[in-house]
Amino acid sequence: MYGFISIKTSLIFDIIEHPYFQRLRYIKQLGMTHLVYPGALHTRFHHALGAMHLMQLAIEHLQNKGHTITLAETEAACIAILLHDIGHGPFSHALEHTIVQGISHEQIGKLLMAKINEDLDGKLALAMQIFNNTYKKKFLYQLIAGQLDLDRLDYLNRDSFFSGVTEGMVSSDRIIKLLNIKNGNLVVEEKGIYSIEKFLIARRLMYWQVYLHKTVIAAEQMLVKILNRARELANTGVELFATPIFKHFLYNKISHTDFYQQQVHLNNFVQLDDSDVMASIKVWCQHPDFILSTLCTSLTQRQLYKVEISNKQPDKHKIKALTQHIVQKFNISEDDSSYFIFTDTINNIAYNTTVGNINILMKNNDLQDITLASDNSFLDALAKSVTKNILCYTKI
Amino acid sequence: MYGFISIKTSLIFDIIEHPYFQRLRYIKQLGMTHLVYPGALHTRFHHALGAMHLMQLAIEHLQNKGHTITLAETEAACIAILLHDIGHGPFSHALEHTIVQGISHEQIGKLLMAKINEDLDGKLALAMQIFNNTYKKKFLYQLIAGQLDLDRLDYLNRDSFFSGVTEGMVSSDRIIKLLNIKNGNLVVEEKGIYSIEKFLIARRLMYWQVYLHKTVIAAEQMLVKILNRARELANTGVELFATPIFKHFLYNKISHTDFYQQQVHLNNFVQLDDSDVMASIKVWCQHPDFILSTLCTSLTQRQLYKVEISNKQPDKHKIKALTQHIVQKFNISEDDSSYFIFTDTINNIAYNTTVGNINILMKNNDLQDITLASDNSFLDALAKSVTKNILCYTKI
Amino acid sequence: MYGFISIKTSLIFDIIEHPYFQRLRYIKQLGMTHLVYPGALHTRFHHALGAMHLMQLAIEHLQNKGHTITLAETEAACIAILLHDIGHGPFSHALEHTIVQGISHEQIGKLLMAKINEDLDGKLALAMQIFNNTYKKKFLYQLIAGQLDLDRLDYLNRDSFFSGVTEGMVSSDRIIKLLNIKNGNLVVEEKGIYSIEKFLIARRLMYWQVYLHKTVIAAEQMLVKILNRARELANTGVELFATPIFKHFLYNKISHTDFYQQQVHLNNFVQLDDSDVMASIKVWCQHPDFILSTLCTSLTQRQLYKVEISNKQPDKHKIKALTQHIVQKFNISEDDSSYFIFTDTINNIAYNTTVGNINILMKNNDLQDITLASDNSFLDALAKSVTKNILCYTKI
Amino acid sequence: MYGFISIKTSLIFDIIEHPYFQRLRYIKQLGMTHLVYPGALHTRFHHALGAMHLMQLAIEHLQNKGHTITLAETEAACIAILLHDIGHGPFSHALEHTIVQGISHEQIGKLLMAKINEDLDGKLALAMQIFNNTYKKKFLYQLIAGQLDLDRLDYLNRDSFFSGVTEGMVSSDRIIKLLNIKNGNLVVEEKGIYSIEKFLIARRLMYWQVYLHKTVIAAEQMLVKILNRARELANTGVELFATPIFKHFLYNKISHTDFYQQQVHLNNFVQLDDSDVMASIKVWCQHPDFILSTLCTSLTQRQLYKVEISNKQPDKHKIKALTQHIVQKFNISEDDSSYFIFTDTINNIAYNTTVGNINILMKNNDLQDITLASDNSFLDALAKSVTKNILCYTKI
Repeated sequence: MYGFISIKTSLIFDIIEHPYFQRLRYIKQLGMTHLVYPGALHTRFHHALGAMHLMQLAIEHLQNKGHTITLAETEAACIAILLHDIGHGPFSHALEHTIVQGISHEQIGKLLMAKINEDLDGKLALAMQIFNNTYKKKFLYQLIAGQLDLDRLDYLNRDSFFSGVTEGMVSSDRIIKLLNIKNGNLVVEEKGIYSIEKFLIARRLMYWQVYLHKTVIAAEQMLVKILNRARELANTGVELFATPIFKHFLYNKISHTDFYQQQVHLNNFVQLDDSDVMASIKVWCQHPDFILSTLCTSLTQRQLYKVEISNKQPDKHKIKALTQHIVQKFNISEDDSSYFIFTDTINNIAYNTTVGNINILMKNNDLQDITLASDNSFLDALAKSVTKNILCYTKI
Repeated sequence: MYGFISIKTSLIFDIIEHPYFQRLRYIKQLGMTHLVYPGALHTRFHHALGAMHLMQLAIEHLQNKGHTITLAETEAACIAILLHDIGHGPFSHALEHTIVQGISHEQIGKLLMAKINEDLDGKLALAMQIFNNTYKKKFLYQLIAGQLDLDRLDYLNRDSFFSGVTEGMVSSDRIIKLLNIKNGNLVVEEKGIYSIEKFLIARRLMYWQVYLHKTVIAAEQMLVKILNRARELANTGVELFATPIFKHFLYNKISHTDFYQQQVHLNNFVQLDDSDVMASIKVWCQHPDFILSTLCTSLTQRQLYKVEISNKQPDKHKIKALTQHIVQKFNISEDDSSYFIFTDTINNIAYNTTVGNINILMKNNDLQDITLASDNSFLDALAKSVTKNILCYTKI
Repeated sequence: MYGFISIKTSLIFDIIEHPYFQRLRYIKQLGMTHLVYPGALHTRFHHALGAMHLMQLAIEHLQNKGHTITLAETEAACIAILLHDIGHGPFSHALEHTIVQGISHEQIGKLLMAKINEDLDGKLALAMQIFNNTYKKKFLYQLIAGQLDLDRLDYLNRDSFFSGVTEGMVSSDRIIKLLNIKNGNLVVEEKGIYSIEKFLIARRLMYWQVYLHKTVIAAEQMLVKILNRARELANTGVELFATPIFKHFLYNKISHTDFYQQQVHLNNFVQLDDSDVMASIKVWCQHPDFILSTLCTSLTQRQLYKVEISNKQPDKHKIKALTQHIVQKFNISEDDSSYFIFTDTINNIAYNTTVGNINILMKNNDLQDITLASDNSFLDALAKSVTKNILCYTKI
Repeated sequence: MYGFISIKTSLIFDIIEHPYFQRLRYIKQLGMTHLVYPGALHTRFHHALGAMHLMQLAIEHLQNKGHTITLAETEAACIAILLHDIGHGPFSHALEHTIVQGISHEQIGKLLMAKINEDLDGKLALAMQIFNNTYKKKFLYQLIAGQLDLDRLDYLNRDSFFSGVTEGMVSSDRIIKLLNIKNGNLVVEEKGIYSIEKFLIARRLMYWQVYLHKTVIAAEQMLVKILNRARELANTGVELFATPIFKHFLYNKISHTDFYQQQVHLNNFVQLDDSDVMASIKVWCQHPDFILSTLCTSLTQRQLYKVEISNKQPDKHKIKALTQHIVQKFNISEDDSSYFIFTDTINNIAYNTTVGNINILMKNNDLQDITLASDNSFLDALAKSVTKNILCYTKI
């Protein structure tokens, strides 16, 4: 997407070579989304490198505008963004809700960063300060995590490109060119207003058209239900095929404290990738448990849930009728029917002011929030949360 | 942009070969915009062919959805959109405000269509009906002229592509795929909502970033002032170099009625293109009239007006001071200073409901205006007109 | 890459939904190439659909030139190309040389086609005739398998696009537009000569820059050696973790005849994909066998063989010295050192006249081979086979 | 094409602002080629800036490889390539053969560079040394003018992009990345061999498909004939409309010596652009001279010569028959028929070793000519000149 990406220092090279980082090659950025958009096979490895590339560009532009950013700070900021997603496991969203419940990917990320830091003689100290927002130059943190960070610029473009939903493309080149620093904080110059509007709309579109696409939801929910069922069976001592490390997480209930105190959990976690999950699910297609094998076969053959999205609550009568139909057809209990019919909610805010602002540097040198700087009030509307109800059920 | 464009019938081929149409090769779509975005050299010839190509795609999709559109209607719709801008002259906006004031490009377009129709034995009858919205199938007209027509889809993408402002790209492929017909009118299917939002934002961005870019305004206003001055001089009998057809429009005051009654005007008009204007302006750089030669030299060497855009009225004191400075520096009258300093307003509505709606065909088969169909109220804001004040003056 | 791909008939839809076809989603087109070109994660699923899309275009163009191709023939040709690679397993090249030696992917492909045909009530009869080149219209076969078929046009472009080696792109649009039929055979019109030259050069470049890139060879050879070692261990009864279907192929020696006579082999084969191999290799990193665990760890952490490519025979003294070094360092037998140092040859012909010609239809209606039709003799050179020697060894 | 191009120094900015350079905005790079490839409207202004951008990239890569190139040298090299085509007039090829015969565009270029140097206080001294190949670091000159210079890399890509003949694209990014310096000369590293092969083939394709396309030839020859006729009429005192500067060249016979001794010629030359020629030709459509008006009308309405290209000499009988037909039909002399029927030759060498070599830096640090370094002998063939005969005549 960006042509050649250059690796500027030997420390960065060593981090990329580190097994914790190489493992990202085998973890898809968008999980099961490829079942809807077949091109979406790009991995967290790509995204991490891409975000680092944008960091290099951004720092260069800021330096050209007269801001001092040292070589050490540049390297550290590159490392911080390179590792910003290092804590993700395979199908992260699904796993965090099922098998690996004790601890979040942000927490695992910090543990792994500390480990890599040890392996590399403490050379990540500054990167970790930036990442934890304890470094004095706040704008470096804001380039990594904010309403308009390089993480988002990269993933929106990358997800658009590989999914083929080209409408999600944003002009990262132009936005980066218009970044500036004011009072130590990251800001966007006034002539970037229209590009920011476009960025927010693109983000909104990507949510509803890709990340929360109803067939994507169907596939991800099916994975969640499969992992839940597998866990349930494992808890009751049922034998399940799995790779040893995957088995570790299926058969052990690992608390937050365990994760920090017992090294074995993290050691296993860093070996887990998409292939453990997918290879096991294929084997489970033959498992004697009706629910597990049915769900696994459905996922493998892409017979996904039907998903209905609505602003209103799903119709209770419809749910009841479908449930009874499923109970009879599959000859299962009403409790177990929740593997085949269930409701949930999905949510998105295009511009979430609770986690930070996009500040515009006006020509007169004032700062204004983007919602005020724009000559149009539509951005207010984008700052409102949108929640929708979903109803998922097996087509039978 | 679209790969190969195919010409489906011999009638369409004949129209493209017609001198009136070939002349569009020499009229740039965006006038002087190339002084800001150097790539923007594309012509009305390209745009007309591109819009026809999109018409072919749109009709194919509508036919695949079960709507009957005959071969004759398809050809006529293609011709209608091919000729939708045939009435434009070079630097159309500037000329209509100066030299060719008697008649609009829409009116000239209809005259030219009638002429081509004569030359081609009346074969354009159906195309003219569609173009004039007198044909029963209203959706064919709406594909040519509406809030979401193929004209806009093509020019937004084309202008984005050639100017390099890639943020203005819209997903014409996807939008066309989601067009449908309901009660005889053109509608967009519900899953196209986010694409329409994106289209409206892209259009808004193109206005402020390209069409109303302050340096583009500077160049176009300079052309307007040059033509005004030339006309003023011509009116008082001053000798001006010009190609014969350009001279015709400089030295004659042609009323609306004249245009319809005297064939000579139209005959001259269809020979006018960018080169007449640009070649003459270059000669005027040496003209004894100080105002004319100064303006022409400025334009040729790209020393354009400084333009200030603001939501507020320009500061009267500033204008006064600048005016006096110009009067003294150039030793001209206060009246004549209006060639070097002046104010104006610019205006844009992203979604102009007064000229038609974008109707969304909901899944339940209802129709809703896009501003209601979207789950977000920001489109209301886009339907409001935005007006800004501009102050232009020569940098001295 | 091509925008939307349309699925024209319900039979084609059913084939795509078939589990044999859905499985291609999980088999990467270029195996381990992503270790060199990280974007190269595209699958055989994508390529099959892409080739079908080109078939639709090609047939449309040929029909427009007046050649009769019926709806049934069109559907059958689409199906034939959709299934042309159906017999491939994961890491096909490596597996065929190690675990699945009894039978080629072409033979498996024909078995699977016959199976799908059964499942779909014999509706694939015509597609199978075309695929086997027993149908009277030879050009349909030539569109699938020839020196200039749609398979090649798609994979060259797709592999270029996803690897980022944009120099391998060919103008499939233009080449397809210039296809024609003469005496029942596929030909290219004369004005396509330069495009064909470019196609052959692009193919040559893709071979040396991607398919036979030395780091790609290093990764693929490592996989071959891993599978060989696993097989060797399995043969002697050593316990190896693997998914059940992968185990089937590791522990059984399946002859060509077995494959045809015992259904179980094919049944297992169609469930095998990349994840079985990769998940097992990760587990083998901990295996007590030194050779297996060393190779698997190397592959997983991307510590690949060093590969030297040369027109000359590798230096025997160098090989001997390296071998001894490895034997000592690893404390293994000289026999076993062949897992860590070995030689081989690689080979490529840009234009292989032994498997068919590219015929040019000259303006005077004569046919000429491309090497004669071009005004330049360089194509002769491209028709010569290029063989190179490789030396691979573990860096220690 | 390249995203944003940055202007690094104020001297470069001043050169771009200079009227001699701004004038390039109005001179199309490919003359009348847009009559065949409508997008080909890009100008010499674009190409000059693009080539400078590639120079910046190339120097950056060479510096990263450890070669010393000072800031002053960088600026001078950028200026030298920015101005490498400054001596071109409108429709350069046609004018040099007709109206401006006294002096070549290279000579005018040097005169103009000297003038700009004067205007800018001698600051172009180093740039002029590089351009004239009198500076010690020969590789800087080779980056501007050689078998593989940045001029060619830019124009091949630019002409491909704007003409839509995407097959002419070369991987300038990759080639530039593989440039190096050996013994003071520009070389390409061994792994760039396939990219160079592709570059030479792309160049060959662009010649036959664009620069020497038969309809492009038809249009350019028609322009040559028009200018010849106009000149002939002017010489005999016939009155012709033209802009004053164009008239200067039509009515005066300016020798090489005149050009150097009389300032007026150069002063007029730098004001000439496409619009002077095109505006005048349109007026000549009404000229009483039958030959002139016929040719001008043909060009304006795109009724071009029929052109036949062949390896053989055109058939004399055919020429005779066509000539007689034209003489009778138009009632003109046999002499004058040469405006409507004539023969010529066209020529191309993809790799012209007489003007310099492409040297490959082998891994063992040896230098080899590309034709020897490649493992395939086809490049020898590309180094041979290809000449073809053309026959042009008016279709009547």
